[in-house]
Amino acid sequence: MKSRAAVAFGPGEPLKIVEVDVMPPQAGEVLIKISHTGVCHTDAFTLSGDDPEGVFPAILGHEGAGVVVEVGEGVTSVKPGDHVIPLYTAECGECLFCKSGKTNLCVAVRATQGKGLMPDGTTRFSYNGQPIYHYMGCSTFSEYTVVAEVSLAKINPEANHEEVCLLGCGVTTGIGAVHNTAKVQEGDSVAVFGLGGIGLAVLQGARQAKAGRIFAVDTNPEKFALARQFGATDCLNPNDYDKPIQQVLIEMTQWGVDHTFECIGNVNVMRAALESAHRGWGQSIIIGVAGAGQEISTRPFQLVTGRSWKGSAFGGVKGRSQLPGMVEDAMKGNIELKPFVTHKLPLEQINEAFDLMHEGKSIRTVIHFD
Amino acid sequence: MKSRAAVAFGPGEPLKIVEVDVMPPQAGEVLIKISHTGVCHTDAFTLSGDDPEGVFPAILGHEGAGVVVEVGEGVTSVKPGDHVIPLYTAECGECLFCKSGKTNLCVAVRATQGKGLMPDGTTRFSYNGQPIYHYMGCSTFSEYTVVAEVSLAKINPEANHEEVCLLGCGVTTGIGAVHNTAKVQEGDSVAVFGLGGIGLAVLQGARQAKAGRIFAVDTNPEKFALARQFGATDCLNPNDYDKPIQQVLIEMTQWGVDHTFECIGNVNVMRAALESAHRGWGQSIIIGVAGAGQEISTRPFQLVTGRSWKGSAFGGVKGRSQLPGMVEDAMKGNIELKPFVTHKLPLEQINEAFDLMHEGKSIRTVIHFD
Repeated sequence: MKSRAAVAFGPGEPLKIVEVDVMPPQAGEVLIKISHTGVCHTDAFTLSGDDPEGVFPAILGHEGAGVVVEVGEGVTSVKPGDHVIPLYTAECGECLFCKSGKTNLCVAVRATQGKGLMPDGTTRFSYNGQPIYHYMGCSTFSEYTVVAEVSLAKINPEANHEEVCLLGCGVTTGIGAVHNTAKVQEGDSVAVFGLGGIGLAVLQGARQAKAGRIFAVDTNPEKFALARQFGATDCLNPNDYDKPIQQVLIEMTQWGVDHTFECIGNVNVMRAALESAHRGWGQSIIIGVAGAGQEISTRPFQLVTGRSWKGSAFGGVKGRSQLPGMVEDAMKGNIELKPFVTHKLPLEQINEAFDLMHEGKSIRTVIHFD
Repeated sequence: MKSRAAVAFGPGEPLKIVEVDVMPPQAGEVLIKISHTGVCHTDAFTLSGDDPEGVFPAILGHEGAGVVVEVGEGVTSVKPGDHVIPLYTAECGECLFCKSGKTNLCVAVRATQGKGLMPDGTTRFSYNGQPIYHYMGCSTFSEYTVVAEVSLAKINPEANHEEVCLLGCGVTTGIGAVHNTAKVQEGDSVAVFGLGGIGLAVLQGARQAKAGRIFAVDTNPEKFALARQFGATDCLNPNDYDKPIQQVLIEMTQWGVDHTFECIGNVNVMRAALESAHRGWGQSIIIGVAGAGQEISTRPFQLVTGRSWKGSAFGGVKGRSQLPGMVEDAMKGNIELKPFVTHKLPLEQINEAFDLMHEGKSIRTVIHFD
């Protein structure tokens, strides 16, 4: 079948809106009609060419919501008409990782997904007869896309796709990191570095967890009003101080902050976040994705005196088990999604969404296909 | 009173055996007659001059056992005749850290201890009228030493001091890191980097925890026989491979090792240990003390894919609460201490103990004062 799609033909080039060919879903696969998709920094990172796993031409996008159109052989967990969110972190329920009870990092489709392929090693997209690669197992920048059954969360059909599509990545990542990775408890202190979509979601998670003092750190003070609305008690601009921000936070708290979150992808900020953590038990969670080859550093004394350095992917959330419940939370108002949707554009204007993001003007632009 | 002591008069100089003056214990302090003391790498590190906190002249030593001689005003938890182990990690029971239930890093005497002083800011040792600094709140290289009451664990008077003195540092650090910091569970895999006293103690802890596969890593294969005796199932010499040891361990285990321990103080080995940890949930514990100014590094991807980087000081053990129980464990044979004591020397030959350690010939030399 034919599908409108925004195709990344090469690194650094604007996306092109073309009509691609989409093959029917094969065994264990599902064809979805995407209604809405967010545009995330990770899409921009891959488009820039800096992502060592990036392959072209590809259909990017990994933060979407849609409806099942057709299922391949053997698919039992969804049927045509079901409302779904595609998952870049699959949940097969069968692998060592799914069965461990310790992580959401399922490996069922990992090897092929990283290469832009479906689990059988081929693609379902083509343009003028040439294959086009998949992206993060989702490719939500195509109106019709094919994903593995294990990469789909079935959600409440009453949910507002324009908002819950954001649970496909950023918001879930931030909120999940608070609950699943850091396990923030009532009264704990929290510091969030970077107030983009993920950082703002961390603030929401911290408020849900009834955290005590919540520090929001960003060099753009325009973010502070929304940060306060989401629960930040102290907003700090590192440029306002003549000493490192970790020193500022240690002085404000005496011993540091219980939980710190890096939501940017900057290795220097990752260090600052770790060194802001509380002596004896503080932990720092890396959420941001750093550029290829970049490294984090600190003195080991920081760890020996009781700090832990951790990371979080998709907020530690198991997509098929847990995402439907988060959609319900959003429908009940326990997760606020509306403030994240600062811009709405049709597919044809998707390159403007990247511009708005690069200019710091949007939290999320949601693309709609109708 | 007079006391025989091995004094470090300056960095890099051999210790000198002299008779020092020891003042009586002040309020909250205890005078102890040390019977035995181990010689640990940390003593050598400070003696070398590389320790930024090192001050001279000082009486080193922090791994001892002895008997209470006299108590200062207000001391209630010990009395003359009690058998004790001095603690370089105090436990006051009152500070934020002691009360947290999350860490053993008591701060009661931390500020002064780091400067070589008693809590009132003065020293109890002098030589020819000049003050001599304390060390790690213990100074066990003096036959008579004064320590804070909060820095003393009261132990079973039947315990063999020649062995249980090692619970004052190395053995407790290694075993404690397994149980308190890593919380190794039955069947988990473990890798130990560096088979000195601490690494061998980690092996014992892993065996106590009923770990499954236990990897012992050292560039000196002479350590492997004892490592196997202590529970290692696989002994690896990194020099036997033409690829990084983390790659070897990943290949041997497919996804890495559940818990890894760095017991050397080498920042490159710290990285190897972290990168040997299991995808999804592996954790690496830094126990070794790195040189001043040295830093650890890795790609943040290592953490985002589920590894945690932590540290452990004194094995996370709360000395006054937990050390007496570990002494009982040693007396029952649940902790083997005898194999650690490879050499025994009188105080007068203490510099030979440092030589044996630097030459890799000893695990521990225990110094006796009688």
